[in-house]
Amino acid sequence: MRVLYFDGSRVFLDHHYPAPEPRKNEALLKILLAGICDTDLQIVAGYMQYKGILGHEFVARVERAQDSTWLGQTVVGEINISCGSCEQCRTGLGNHCSHRSVLGILNKDGILAEYATLPLSNLRIVPPSLAPQQAVFCEPLAAAVQISNQIQIQPTARVLLLGDGKLGSLIAQTLALTGCDLTVLGRHPAKLNDLLKHTANITVQTELSSRYDRTFDVVVEATGRSQGLQLACRYVKPRGTVIMKSTLSHRDNIDLNKVVIDEITIIGSRCGPFSAALRLLESRKVQTDFLIEAIMPLSQGEEAFQQASKRGSKKILIDPTR
Amino acid sequence: MRVLYFDGSRVFLDHHYPAPEPRKNEALLKILLAGICDTDLQIVAGYMQYKGILGHEFVARVERAQDSTWLGQTVVGEINISCGSCEQCRTGLGNHCSHRSVLGILNKDGILAEYATLPLSNLRIVPPSLAPQQAVFCEPLAAAVQISNQIQIQPTARVLLLGDGKLGSLIAQTLALTGCDLTVLGRHPAKLNDLLKHTANITVQTELSSRYDRTFDVVVEATGRSQGLQLACRYVKPRGTVIMKSTLSHRDNIDLNKVVIDEITIIGSRCGPFSAALRLLESRKVQTDFLIEAIMPLSQGEEAFQQASKRGSKKILIDPTR
Repeated sequence: MRVLYFDGSRVFLDHHYPAPEPRKNEALLKILLAGICDTDLQIVAGYMQYKGILGHEFVARVERAQDSTWLGQTVVGEINISCGSCEQCRTGLGNHCSHRSVLGILNKDGILAEYATLPLSNLRIVPPSLAPQQAVFCEPLAAAVQISNQIQIQPTARVLLLGDGKLGSLIAQTLALTGCDLTVLGRHPAKLNDLLKHTANITVQTELSSRYDRTFDVVVEATGRSQGLQLACRYVKPRGTVIMKSTLSHRDNIDLNKVVIDEITIIGSRCGPFSAALRLLESRKVQTDFLIEAIMPLSQGEEAFQQASKRGSKKILIDPTR
Repeated sequence: MRVLYFDGSRVFLDHHYPAPEPRKNEALLKILLAGICDTDLQIVAGYMQYKGILGHEFVARVERAQDSTWLGQTVVGEINISCGSCEQCRTGLGNHCSHRSVLGILNKDGILAEYATLPLSNLRIVPPSLAPQQAVFCEPLAAAVQISNQIQIQPTARVLLLGDGKLGSLIAQTLALTGCDLTVLGRHPAKLNDLLKHTANITVQTELSSRYDRTFDVVVEATGRSQGLQLACRYVKPRGTVIMKSTLSHRDNIDLNKVVIDEITIIGSRCGPFSAALRLLESRKVQTDFLIEAIMPLSQGEEAFQQASKRGSKKILIDPTR
């Protein structure tokens, strides 16, 4: 089958990769649509020392499964494959399983391919009202929703979101649903304007003066950039909360004394609940169409990666059926 | 008067420093006993770019004050001098006042001197049952108590304390009061043994194998060392909490991706409540005598600083009346 492969130094289309064979309790998935995420770009820059088929955002059709009720279903899938028996798994933290593999990130081939496999327990059925180009946002939207799963965003909170990128634009929409006083600080006026059009009750800025130092109750760092955390610590109030979303192949040294001096709380935030993400997509509470840059065939996968790497690129989707 | 001064490059005894003049609402304090803290050592290594009289841990007698009820009282003093009118002050976060000065740390001469001044509102009367060499631990003990002021330490929690130093030994005792399952990881067997003698229900270790990676609900980082935070992130459970106490003149770069991946919460923790610290000292719930290395006269202040800088040194107290 055709796959987009990363060998540790370059990304290339492999036309003759062996098709995966589903294990017991796994489904064979025909990938209908996939997304390129900043994590994929960080992996190509060295993050996680991953080698293999790239990609973890997808919509697929179940082609084969021992439990026949799954056959033909359109699904999305949680990316952490957990053991089910370690302490994390037994305490409801399967996403943090000590023995996990992670789709396209850790010891498990990803989904920028014609076919892939995942345990049935990872799959979620896509409501019929959602088109593939909407459902494909389920995974990053779940990561956005994870923020309000971890901390209470009060409707009275002053919240700053750093980053107007692919994940940032989803986070902005979910945070706005809380009614909080939300400012989005980004570097791309066009994206910020788009976001403003699709999200009620937010303020967008391309810069914030020092008047805003130490003024926000919560700062969400989703810049994907090395200096994002330092900036977050600058704008958050003493005793405030910084949500840290960016994983980076390289990060500059930052002044962590400020965390102690201002008694800042930093909370790392990764994968989130697909169920809530699907509800928000289905109810159209979160818009995704304006976030798409292009849908490209897998045959142009290498070019797609280059385009996704360009500064300011919106979401590049890949159609592995073409 | 005689003071121990840091001019940005060296610590020296100045015999002819002008005595301070208390402003309205300030007391003139005759310092009875003072402590050298790791923060003082970090300052001498460049932290905060402070220049001036060093020191912020003290017991004193009130020599002069407009409100005569203070005269002759034995006091300790909170080190943050706040404006009383900024947003932080108006919301009960005076320790985080945007315009604050900090005794011996930021824009305010410290107390390694015969006399010092502080606002009356910073002073706390020392209960008569406490000797100066006990009450002088009030400031660092308050910083230890601040941890359980910020987060709930559950009696069922597995807690790891990194650091067996001056602050660490106070933190160990306050954490043990919660009934939690506490392990102290330190580098000094003699100190750990001392701590064990004076603290019920703790485990001490000089090393922890990888079997303990990702196993503690809470890790308190009080090593005063550059790699402390990395170590804390290694031992804390996914979704666990790291309390960060060390402020350092220099810190090595650490892998912050783990914070995101394991969804760790890092909470900076600085100054704490004197009232609770005095109660714990008065009730003998926290022991301090075994933490004292020596009481030295101010005339030997330079030697005292050298001794305090030695690896493994316990608390050096300075008597400015001598």
